[in-house]
Amino acid sequence: MNLSSPVGLATDILSRPVKSLLRSFPKKPGAAPGTLVYTGPERIDPVAVHLIEYDWDVLEERELEADTSFPELAGSERLTWINVDGLNEVDLIRDIGTAFGLHPLVLEDLVHTGQRPKVEENEDYFFVVLRMLTLDDTTLAVKNEQIGIVFGDGYVLSFQERAGDVWEGVRERIRGKSGRIRGRGADYLAYALIDAIVDNYFNILETFAEQVEALEEEVLEAPSQETMHRIHTLRREMFVVRRAVWPLRELANALVRTESTLIDPGTGVFLRDVYDHTIQVVDAAETLREVVSGLMDLYLSSVSNRMNEIMKVLTIMASIFIPLTFLAGIYGMNFETMPELGFRWAYPALLGVMAVMAVGLVVFFKKRGWL
Amino acid sequence: MNLSSPVGLATDILSRPVKSLLRSFPKKPGAAPGTLVYTGPERIDPVAVHLIEYDWDVLEERELEADTSFPELAGSERLTWINVDGLNEVDLIRDIGTAFGLHPLVLEDLVHTGQRPKVEENEDYFFVVLRMLTLDDTTLAVKNEQIGIVFGDGYVLSFQERAGDVWEGVRERIRGKSGRIRGRGADYLAYALIDAIVDNYFNILETFAEQVEALEEEVLEAPSQETMHRIHTLRREMFVVRRAVWPLRELANALVRTESTLIDPGTGVFLRDVYDHTIQVVDAAETLREVVSGLMDLYLSSVSNRMNEIMKVLTIMASIFIPLTFLAGIYGMNFETMPELGFRWAYPALLGVMAVMAVGLVVFFKKRGWL
Amino acid sequence: MNLSSPVGLATDILSRPVKSLLRSFPKKPGAAPGTLVYTGPERIDPVAVHLIEYDWDVLEERELEADTSFPELAGSERLTWINVDGLNEVDLIRDIGTAFGLHPLVLEDLVHTGQRPKVEENEDYFFVVLRMLTLDDTTLAVKNEQIGIVFGDGYVLSFQERAGDVWEGVRERIRGKSGRIRGRGADYLAYALIDAIVDNYFNILETFAEQVEALEEEVLEAPSQETMHRIHTLRREMFVVRRAVWPLRELANALVRTESTLIDPGTGVFLRDVYDHTIQVVDAAETLREVVSGLMDLYLSSVSNRMNEIMKVLTIMASIFIPLTFLAGIYGMNFETMPELGFRWAYPALLGVMAVMAVGLVVFFKKRGWL
Amino acid sequence: MNLSSPVGLATDILSRPVKSLLRSFPKKPGAAPGTLVYTGPERIDPVAVHLIEYDWDVLEERELEADTSFPELAGSERLTWINVDGLNEVDLIRDIGTAFGLHPLVLEDLVHTGQRPKVEENEDYFFVVLRMLTLDDTTLAVKNEQIGIVFGDGYVLSFQERAGDVWEGVRERIRGKSGRIRGRGADYLAYALIDAIVDNYFNILETFAEQVEALEEEVLEAPSQETMHRIHTLRREMFVVRRAVWPLRELANALVRTESTLIDPGTGVFLRDVYDHTIQVVDAAETLREVVSGLMDLYLSSVSNRMNEIMKVLTIMASIFIPLTFLAGIYGMNFETMPELGFRWAYPALLGVMAVMAVGLVVFFKKRGWL
Amino acid sequence: MNLSSPVGLATDILSRPVKSLLRSFPKKPGAAPGTLVYTGPERIDPVAVHLIEYDWDVLEERELEADTSFPELAGSERLTWINVDGLNEVDLIRDIGTAFGLHPLVLEDLVHTGQRPKVEENEDYFFVVLRMLTLDDTTLAVKNEQIGIVFGDGYVLSFQERAGDVWEGVRERIRGKSGRIRGRGADYLAYALIDAIVDNYFNILETFAEQVEALEEEVLEAPSQETMHRIHTLRREMFVVRRAVWPLRELANALVRTESTLIDPGTGVFLRDVYDHTIQVVDAAETLREVVSGLMDLYLSSVSNRMNEIMKVLTIMASIFIPLTFLAGIYGMNFETMPELGFRWAYPALLGVMAVMAVGLVVFFKKRGWL
Repeated sequence: MNLSSPVGLATDILSRPVKSLLRSFPKKPGAAPGTLVYTGPERIDPVAVHLIEYDWDVLEERELEADTSFPELAGSERLTWINVDGLNEVDLIRDIGTAFGLHPLVLEDLVHTGQRPKVEENEDYFFVVLRMLTLDDTTLAVKNEQIGIVFGDGYVLSFQERAGDVWEGVRERIRGKSGRIRGRGADYLAYALIDAIVDNYFNILETFAEQVEALEEEVLEAPSQETMHRIHTLRREMFVVRRAVWPLRELANALVRTESTLIDPGTGVFLRDVYDHTIQVVDAAETLREVVSGLMDLYLSSVSNRMNEIMKVLTIMASIFIPLTFLAGIYGMNFETMPELGFRWAYPALLGVMAVMAVGLVVFFKKRGWL
Repeated sequence: MNLSSPVGLATDILSRPVKSLLRSFPKKPGAAPGTLVYTGPERIDPVAVHLIEYDWDVLEERELEADTSFPELAGSERLTWINVDGLNEVDLIRDIGTAFGLHPLVLEDLVHTGQRPKVEENEDYFFVVLRMLTLDDTTLAVKNEQIGIVFGDGYVLSFQERAGDVWEGVRERIRGKSGRIRGRGADYLAYALIDAIVDNYFNILETFAEQVEALEEEVLEAPSQETMHRIHTLRREMFVVRRAVWPLRELANALVRTESTLIDPGTGVFLRDVYDHTIQVVDAAETLREVVSGLMDLYLSSVSNRMNEIMKVLTIMASIFIPLTFLAGIYGMNFETMPELGFRWAYPALLGVMAVMAVGLVVFFKKRGWL
Repeated sequence: MNLSSPVGLATDILSRPVKSLLRSFPKKPGAAPGTLVYTGPERIDPVAVHLIEYDWDVLEERELEADTSFPELAGSERLTWINVDGLNEVDLIRDIGTAFGLHPLVLEDLVHTGQRPKVEENEDYFFVVLRMLTLDDTTLAVKNEQIGIVFGDGYVLSFQERAGDVWEGVRERIRGKSGRIRGRGADYLAYALIDAIVDNYFNILETFAEQVEALEEEVLEAPSQETMHRIHTLRREMFVVRRAVWPLRELANALVRTESTLIDPGTGVFLRDVYDHTIQVVDAAETLREVVSGLMDLYLSSVSNRMNEIMKVLTIMASIFIPLTFLAGIYGMNFETMPELGFRWAYPALLGVMAVMAVGLVVFFKKRGWL
Repeated sequence: MNLSSPVGLATDILSRPVKSLLRSFPKKPGAAPGTLVYTGPERIDPVAVHLIEYDWDVLEERELEADTSFPELAGSERLTWINVDGLNEVDLIRDIGTAFGLHPLVLEDLVHTGQRPKVEENEDYFFVVLRMLTLDDTTLAVKNEQIGIVFGDGYVLSFQERAGDVWEGVRERIRGKSGRIRGRGADYLAYALIDAIVDNYFNILETFAEQVEALEEEVLEAPSQETMHRIHTLRREMFVVRRAVWPLRELANALVRTESTLIDPGTGVFLRDVYDHTIQVVDAAETLREVVSGLMDLYLSSVSNRMNEIMKVLTIMASIFIPLTFLAGIYGMNFETMPELGFRWAYPALLGVMAVMAVGLVVFFKKRGWL
Repeated sequence: MNLSSPVGLATDILSRPVKSLLRSFPKKPGAAPGTLVYTGPERIDPVAVHLIEYDWDVLEERELEADTSFPELAGSERLTWINVDGLNEVDLIRDIGTAFGLHPLVLEDLVHTGQRPKVEENEDYFFVVLRMLTLDDTTLAVKNEQIGIVFGDGYVLSFQERAGDVWEGVRERIRGKSGRIRGRGADYLAYALIDAIVDNYFNILETFAEQVEALEEEVLEAPSQETMHRIHTLRREMFVVRRAVWPLRELANALVRTESTLIDPGTGVFLRDVYDHTIQVVDAAETLREVVSGLMDLYLSSVSNRMNEIMKVLTIMASIFIPLTFLAGIYGMNFETMPELGFRWAYPALLGVMAVMAVGLVVFFKKRGWL
């Protein structure tokens, strides 16, 4: 019997704290708004700032030093894309914010890394918050990173919690002059960045689908308490995805419906495409949720069926042998006057009776479909 | 006892991968939009392009060769219906798209075969995505094919993932000049194609209803763990249908409410009819879903009842014979001083007591309704 | 023990096929719209056409022959109510449709007997589809008949699947000149017909309420697997009612809000009354649904409790007698050196010990509340 | 063991017929609208009509006789409040209706006592239907009475199913000239009546909260099948309350938003207050519903835990003594050649082995946390 | 065995009465509106009134005495913030209300401490009701206090049920001239107060998240009936939070969308920030609710699995030893003619047979995965 409790593994799986589902809320009620305090997990990596500046003819790409003059960059004629990896240097972020004229509350939202996806339209720029999901390769836990994108006339600013993203394809298109991207404005670049993040959700969901499939097989073939833990964990990871995905529809819709002149009418059709994709992502997430929820029903019914199987074995064994043991007990009594004890054929006759009883019970259980 | 696990069959039933529920998402986050990459399952069948060109008097019907001049077709005076079976030759699709002036994103949606049903209204054409469901004859699994329909002034383009469709009736009506179809425009032909697909859903749902009925009988007469798997599988297939069916209402509603001049007012009443049908389909799908969900409750209660039956048998057998065995055990003891052992009538008297006890317990169980 | 499975009765109850919940969809995807093919169950009864023609002074009532000139009736000065029982003679329905100028799709809907309740407003007439529910007297199954009502200026046409309806009261009011009905127009007559059908739902729901009550008693007093089947069946019948009832709100609302001149402002207040009634019907149906769903919880808890009772009996019997049997077994051993066997008071002492043990266990179980 | 079934009490609790949840629907489909037939439970109490007529200076209060001239009252200069207790004298109600110019359908709604709460705005008066809930002191069943309130310029008519109401406080304020009530119009009086009914819901809900609390304690301390019945009954009573409470929001909202000149702008702020209260009532009802539903989960888990406890006792007893009994059985065999039987220390040695086995099993069960 | 019932602790946990979930409804149906009767729990603490009066240059802060002239304060040139701790002195509240021109119903809402969060816009002031949640340090029960905030031109009034709040940070910012607060108006101060309350919800939710996490571990490692009680209690506490949190969205939205001149356009962006935070709070509360609900499923499946484990042990023990005991019983019979008894190798042979049977059963159970 497997007496070792399955807790060891399950606890590992559940090592993600529930609190992380609500991570990085502002913690000081009553503090002044617009105070820049980074609230994400502590980081020791240095912050990296990457610049891509381009128009149709020229492309410049470089890492920015600490002493960069951001106001100068803000005044550039070419399209300027500044990407910040790491949010813990709030002074840097304040410098960039000042150079591009961002509102203090936008800066606060950028460093408070528990934002819900949203879009804010200002006169001079759009501010978009998204969540970039990536999968830990070994544990398959969803890593959930806040991405802030600000775009205005001639510039795109992107802020990530840490290095590593899904935008390499976009960078390649810029470098390789492939497609329309070099000939279009900041709105199109922002669209490309958002599109890459949304497309990446499909990969996440596909990995989940594979996990669901593996779990389905496990439920059918060898369900254990650990299976249930896995289902529970999967559901929890799905919460993370759903929280990231649900507000996207509204976000994409707001971008589609805006009347701001910052968005070129020609970009509108691409934004509608993003909107379609977000609806597909939401749809797929809902489907997975329902499959997982059906899986739990399947698991519970499977547990009940196993119980039935166990009880059947017990009942059959006990029902056959308990009456026979009683009969044997009768003739094990020591009464002086028990005439049967002296009959010659009594013993084999009793064995015969016992055999008939046993066969009768077996037939009875067969008829009930228990055998 | 049925010791062979029912997994064999169930795994077969479940051979449809969960991933297929989310099939054919674009896979390259960051790739340029409008890139034509076919994302459906790999196909080796050649792509077939079928043309029907007609007005009230003339009908021409032929398979198109690889070197067809599509711009010429696009300029035809008659109503032109081009049907493409197979989406893997993206060059062909790009040629058609260019000839009829379609937007690159429309072409991308045509070959990305995981679209949600939708309608897009452009100035010069409507783009409709539907899902055509067909049942595999042997496994009764739902096959789910994306259908793209583009219609504009004087032409209808339809794109299917593979050969075989539900439009033979429409073709017959065109060929046989039956009904109004030969006298009407592209909007009416598109309506007829959509209507045929929606009508076909009823057939799918009816086959599901038959399966539900068979399952209901199975639950009532001989429920097993496999029954539960079947219910689970059926629910999953129903997800596929629901995802195809739900967006239809919105789609049909958008067609009914459009103010585009591409749709003749006389066609409006037929589109309203399609809208009514989609509502009926959604309704029927919901009813089936609720019946299946009730089936699961029925199954679980049936499992509980079976457990009760099993426990009753065990309890009755054990409760009757364990006390009797104890009594027999008493008189099987070897104490030197056990006066009863010497009494002449002790043995039959004890047998009498035992019979009375057994009868008493039987009466007790009868009263509780267990027998 | 009741070993005969309760399936016999349950199967009877469930003799209504699931398919009937989705009955009479059009079956030929791709067929031309407006094709008149009756899709209901096959009928051999002849179709009966009943005419009531009246104004304030004159009333004429007769069965119409096969060769009636409908265009003549359509031109009558008086209010003309033609009621058709049976939809299988499509030529007759086409004749009526032509005489009163109905659209082919309206005729198609009339004979396709799986319509969802709806109202269609045309320039010259209103087309209302309702479902008339009647209860089979013996099995209490809900019979679900499509009723089509067309009313325009000076005429009301009503189409039923079969003879027998809930309109006898309306006819009596017309014949007896009671109330306002003889002095009002076609809109009021149509209102009276709809009102009678809606009022009849209350009767159906009351019969359901009685069944629910009987089931509640059964669950409390003698729940069996069959009870669960009954609950399941009742739920399924409730689906039929809900599907007939839910769209009514929208339908009644559309009639209340119409601005058509076909509806006299004086009739508006009565239509609002119908609207109120439909809301009450929907409300009552929801209440019943919730009670039935609570009944299922009650049933499941009752099954669990019974299981507990059974297990208690088993545990008490086994826990008391198994240790005693063990003790008896000890002194039934045949060791040569077992000094207790020779003691004079050993036997009664052992019996005493056994009695103490038994009493101790009984007290233990009493304390736990199991006795 | 408590063998007496708990049905006796439960049936008492459930003595409220399910039908009463849908009480007093009109029963005669096809009858003319506006027919005054009282549909509530039969009553033999005489109908009482109470009049309060007042302005700032004068107050007159009396019971009205059968031969009152209502038209005269309707013409009174002062504010006239006529309260009718009992709806079974339809002639009286018709007289009042005629005197105050009420529509026949309003009168029909007044005597058809199954109305859903609603407000109807007419040119000359408002018609409000509410449900007054009172608790039966002994059984705590909710009594559900329809209240009709009609108010127009200078008069308020209130119709109750039976004597006894929650308006004594309002009457006292009128008599004692306390607050604003004597100086305001019919709209304010109507507001005061509605407000009193809504406030009373809080009392009902508080009594429910106490019952829920008692049930919670019962579930935690001594859950029985009867507990489940009580939960079920409570849920059913809650349906009654919810049906009365839900439509109130809409009703209060309609009163707040009306533009009728019958409602003084100064009364608007009080109506908004009623609206706030109805939202609080709905809120509280929802909270209670969720607590009760959580209670059911708690109950079911408690039943499962008890089952576990029972099974543990059985398993421990059986697992310890069945192997020991087997050992004793071995040495109770009568083989001629069983050398152990002759060994001197065999008997005590065997007893020792048995003790070790028993202790070993106890330790095993302790480790698993079963002891 | 743990025979001591876990009720002791659980009752403690549940010591919060259900009624408190609906606390402090007005209790006297029919009483005049605007009557100031404090309905919260009885308090003996004296009421404290705190004044902060400031502009950019000057700050005055003091406790107000009983004989303060509020009209004088109302006329102050500087921004006046009066905070009242304790609502039981209704005369004081009436004085303040009169001085600042508040409507009697606003005062009634201030002292009726069961209000739902809401905002009321009047011509001269805004009236906001919020619920301030604090956690009891030892029991972790949520304390739920009503906060009324009134702000108009140049003044903010805040009313708390008792001393102690989350506004110390705001007071510090005023005193320390940090941030913008000293330079802005009453609308900004009110925003700061609301913001502090909303931010505090995150702390509450984080504590809940920690509790959920501890419970999750308990369910995985050592679930008991008490665990279920804890889950139930947690769910109930979550109701309190949800009822405080849900209406916030609407409230914040109303403040964002108001067109009142009392709110400076520059404050609007901060109110939008509050709105974003409320959406995050609602989101987080929903996530927690879903995790808790998944926890209950996990618990129930864990109970079922434990039952399975117990039954397996019982079945294995019984199935192995009952047949062996039967065999021993056979050879314990006292028939005179039992030839096997005399065979020399009979005894060891039988022991061998028994061993083979036991091993066979062990192998059988191993194969089924029970061992």
